[in-house]
Amino acid sequence: MKEFDLIGNYFAKGGYVRKDVLLGIGDDAAVTKVPTGQCVVTTTDTLVEGVHFLADTAPEAIAHKAIAVNLSDLAAMGAEPAWISLSLSLPSIDESWVKAFSEKIHSLSHYFSFQLIGGDTVQGPLSITITAQGFIPDDNQITRSGAEPSDWLLVTGCLGDAGVGLDILTDKVIVSNAEHASYLKNRHWFPTPRVLAGTTLRRVATSCIDVSDGLIQDLHQVISRSEVGAIVHLDKLPISEALGKNIENLTDALTYAATAGDDYELLFTVPEEQRVYIETALASYNIPVTCIGQITGAAGKIDLRLDEQPFEFESKKIGFEHFS
Amino acid sequence: MKEFDLIGNYFAKGGYVRKDVLLGIGDDAAVTKVPTGQCVVTTTDTLVEGVHFLADTAPEAIAHKAIAVNLSDLAAMGAEPAWISLSLSLPSIDESWVKAFSEKIHSLSHYFSFQLIGGDTVQGPLSITITAQGFIPDDNQITRSGAEPSDWLLVTGCLGDAGVGLDILTDKVIVSNAEHASYLKNRHWFPTPRVLAGTTLRRVATSCIDVSDGLIQDLHQVISRSEVGAIVHLDKLPISEALGKNIENLTDALTYAATAGDDYELLFTVPEEQRVYIETALASYNIPVTCIGQITGAAGKIDLRLDEQPFEFESKKIGFEHFS
Repeated sequence: MKEFDLIGNYFAKGGYVRKDVLLGIGDDAAVTKVPTGQCVVTTTDTLVEGVHFLADTAPEAIAHKAIAVNLSDLAAMGAEPAWISLSLSLPSIDESWVKAFSEKIHSLSHYFSFQLIGGDTVQGPLSITITAQGFIPDDNQITRSGAEPSDWLLVTGCLGDAGVGLDILTDKVIVSNAEHASYLKNRHWFPTPRVLAGTTLRRVATSCIDVSDGLIQDLHQVISRSEVGAIVHLDKLPISEALGKNIENLTDALTYAATAGDDYELLFTVPEEQRVYIETALASYNIPVTCIGQITGAAGKIDLRLDEQPFEFESKKIGFEHFS
Repeated sequence: MKEFDLIGNYFAKGGYVRKDVLLGIGDDAAVTKVPTGQCVVTTTDTLVEGVHFLADTAPEAIAHKAIAVNLSDLAAMGAEPAWISLSLSLPSIDESWVKAFSEKIHSLSHYFSFQLIGGDTVQGPLSITITAQGFIPDDNQITRSGAEPSDWLLVTGCLGDAGVGLDILTDKVIVSNAEHASYLKNRHWFPTPRVLAGTTLRRVATSCIDVSDGLIQDLHQVISRSEVGAIVHLDKLPISEALGKNIENLTDALTYAATAGDDYELLFTVPEEQRVYIETALASYNIPVTCIGQITGAAGKIDLRLDEQPFEFESKKIGFEHFS
């Protein structure tokens, strides 16, 4: 296993360095200091080849997604990223793969101001586990359980792109417009964790979750934890030009937007008096945000509407096997 | 993957609950609070079936080892455990396996006062990644880099047992005494993380590492990081009755003690003026400790002695492929 230790060298240098890391990679453990008045927010996500990403996905895309899904979880709590621990399981040593993977991690560390503080490199089937730690001011966390009836339901960015991107890669969908196809595949490979949106929602949003399993399924988590219901206007779902122009059947397009996963947009609720504030604040950061519905008192029930009429998806539709 | 989410239910309840965990399992991330004047110590270790543990190892032993190796890293820094994140990759759902595994995690959480704050359960080859977070008072961490010439070199417990235990399980060694065989196998399956010893070493030890790769290899880490050398008296190595009575060839016994891994004892250095204090303090906790040598100024050099005479291991001996 000594050769695997050498791989650690790719990760020990080149990344962002934070002053609150007293001891980084290279000892039995890392030592870090949390600023006064802040809580630690911790999340762990694992990606396994063939389950969470396709075989032969580029190392840059795997690195990006592994970081993004974790930062997205921090963002959904309103936390800013600080420290990352990485466990990388590799079937064999491919130095060019490791180099590309580690350089992407370093590049993201500079962009998002996190430091890689440690981890493990082992021989085994290709998989990546990241534990991300971040900060949030005391009592500022945004949970899934605070939504209240009459709160507005909003979502950042566009929905469904990553799902279409995956279906292009697996030959389930053909998008002939090369620019659109590229955009959609990149949305699958390189999702944007909404870190700035997350910190902007502190003390404003009553609940928040990141859309990883699909809008409706993730909304179920919120209404279940908050003991409320929701009305969703499907005609309001934010759909990109690339998705809208290439998935021409409206029901198919809505199915992607409402049920496909991996978009990593933030779905959140705000009271009426905060809606204009949050829309203005996010707009000032150039973060698109759309109001797609409202919280109701009908606990556990999601009321889907299309042009004000009740709407139901066929259960066999794309992504729907995820939804119960 | 929904069925895998259900597995999370085994982990959400039954474990130790800490007051510094403001939000545990069940949201996008956990929220925790570090006490004033304390640093966070973070370590990550991954165990892969067939690499770090034998196929068909009992789930209780896998759970124990996954926790122990991480707590051992915290102990080597002088830190006390606080929070654990667990990523469990399972090839398929075996509820009795998950039940046994999770119950062992819960049992250890009560014993060591840590809380399981989150994680991930995915479908994939059997492997476990744990990120452990603990506390240490500001500026009290014990690193690998502080050993000074003339410091004494000490080790807790006995060495080599886990290596013999593994060789019994893989039919490389036969131990006919059933009680001894059972003890040695249990030392492999259920290593003891030296948490109390670690906190006792704060402000006393000049360096510390846990013996995971074998005494000599881990000592190399310390002398390399500390830019010193060491003399090791092999005749002083602490050897259990079970190992001593069953590995009758002295060189074989010493090879296990000096080069086999997975004992998870603490190897540490203390200045002359602290030696009696630490020996007394550890004795008062019933933690065996043995002085096995001394730090020298011969940077990078480990001087092995047997009955005061220079000694060399044959490079082909058990465990020696780990040692360079």
